[in-house]
Amino acid sequence: MDHVRHMFEHDLFAKHAGIELISVSPGQATAKMSLQPWHLNGVNTVQGGAIFTLADFAFAAAANSRDKVAVAVNVSITFMKAATTGTLTAEAREVALNPKLGTYTVNVTDEQGSLIAIFQGLAYRKS
Amino acid sequence: MDHVRHMFEHDLFAKHAGIELISVSPGQATAKMSLQPWHLNGVNTVQGGAIFTLADFAFAAAANSRDKVAVAVNVSITFMKAATTGTLTAEAREVALNPKLGTYTVNVTDEQGSLIAIFQGLAYRKS
Amino acid sequence: MDHVRHMFEHDLFAKHAGIELISVSPGQATAKMSLQPWHLNGVNTVQGGAIFTLADFAFAAAANSRDKVAVAVNVSITFMKAATTGTLTAEAREVALNPKLGTYTVNVTDEQGSLIAIFQGLAYRKS
Amino acid sequence: MDHVRHMFEHDLFAKHAGIELISVSPGQATAKMSLQPWHLNGVNTVQGGAIFTLADFAFAAAANSRDKVAVAVNVSITFMKAATTGTLTAEAREVALNPKLGTYTVNVTDEQGSLIAIFQGLAYRKS
Repeated sequence: MDHVRHMFEHDLFAKHAGIELISVSPGQATAKMSLQPWHLNGVNTVQGGAIFTLADFAFAAAANSRDKVAVAVNVSITFMKAATTGTLTAEAREVALNPKLGTYTVNVTDEQGSLIAIFQGLAYRKS
Repeated sequence: MDHVRHMFEHDLFAKHAGIELISVSPGQATAKMSLQPWHLNGVNTVQGGAIFTLADFAFAAAANSRDKVAVAVNVSITFMKAATTGTLTAEAREVALNPKLGTYTVNVTDEQGSLIAIFQGLAYRKS
Repeated sequence: MDHVRHMFEHDLFAKHAGIELISVSPGQATAKMSLQPWHLNGVNTVQGGAIFTLADFAFAAAANSRDKVAVAVNVSITFMKAATTGTLTAEAREVALNPKLGTYTVNVTDEQGSLIAIFQGLAYRKS
Repeated sequence: MDHVRHMFEHDLFAKHAGIELISVSPGQATAKMSLQPWHLNGVNTVQGGAIFTLADFAFAAAANSRDKVAVAVNVSITFMKAATTGTLTAEAREVALNPKLGTYTVNVTDEQGSLIAIFQGLAYRKS
């Protein structure tokens, strides 16, 4: 998993967004984002882009936890509940894998365990 | 459109991500993001979360350009091409509208006009 | 669950597609489709529309298993593997629920348990 | 376009669903479905699976109108309005193309030109 850790330590936008990789193992990854005032949008809830960035980061870590480099091709995200403070957690897990494509589901939850967003990502695996 | 401009001037995460609202009119909006080194991921291309945040911002501006407050419920984004430098532009346009739901397509292009990502957003319109 | 069973017994297109509702309970439903030659497309694999119809039917049953009428607003489906013969099974389960929206994941598998498609559906709950 | 026509003339599920390919040219395709009582669901509107099948068929025709065989990997569909009678039309057009992936948008409209569903499909292009 060292190559994954290395890749994600050099992800400057994730750093800029205050995201931290907590763990990664084959087909799984967890990331966190401690909410700051600058994560909010004009109606004082966490901006959708910040939530997406957290989920996408966990997805990318999980997708690259295997033997091939994987790049996101399509993502669908559903926002279930607004978040405002505390720490958000994204847990990515592989739901299907074939030589060319991997599919991952990421749940983003708040500190109370409430589901904030569900993210489904499809990654293309380079040969 | 003043309420939309006001809402987006107070979007702190969009500011943090270096995004600027260029124009908004009923059912349409354009936003830009001038790429900086901190927009990049661990493989030196623009991070997916940054591209999403730009597209989502244009989507939210277009969705709120009507008489009702609209919140994103579901978004699907397809990444077509990696971007590295220059300025990215997101153009959102309404493709369907009913009393409860609005659907928007956002094209994200680079300075050469190449399509970087296609974003389709569904917004729930509050009464 | 009788109103759900009644609704689905009158779903003529599902009948036309050879789909059968196996079980429904709050937040969950299972449906099956025994493959026939007319489920195939021009390259002799099960047509995507047939797989979608099966998954969508299980989703609709699960979404209507609660106290409100729910209608599909957005669905994302990822096709993982081609299917050709046997019986396909779709299992829908609720992953999130709030007063207005419900989110469901449906796994479509073949007789060997291989994942054929993953479906994520968002339903609007009428008041 | 003869190979596309041939492929779609042998699509048995599309035939079973009453779908007709109207036209195909590079990057575009149009299909129609004349609604019959058996296209309806348990609440007497056109079943989502029937609408998807129509849109998916136009998508597949457009995606295969180029020099490579293309298979659907991911689709997102948003249902905007219920349909009941008449003929539905699906118009697919290519919005982006690279050597591995093509993206297509399909609009499904009724006889009055109202938008019934918007479909966005991603196809993997085999080499």
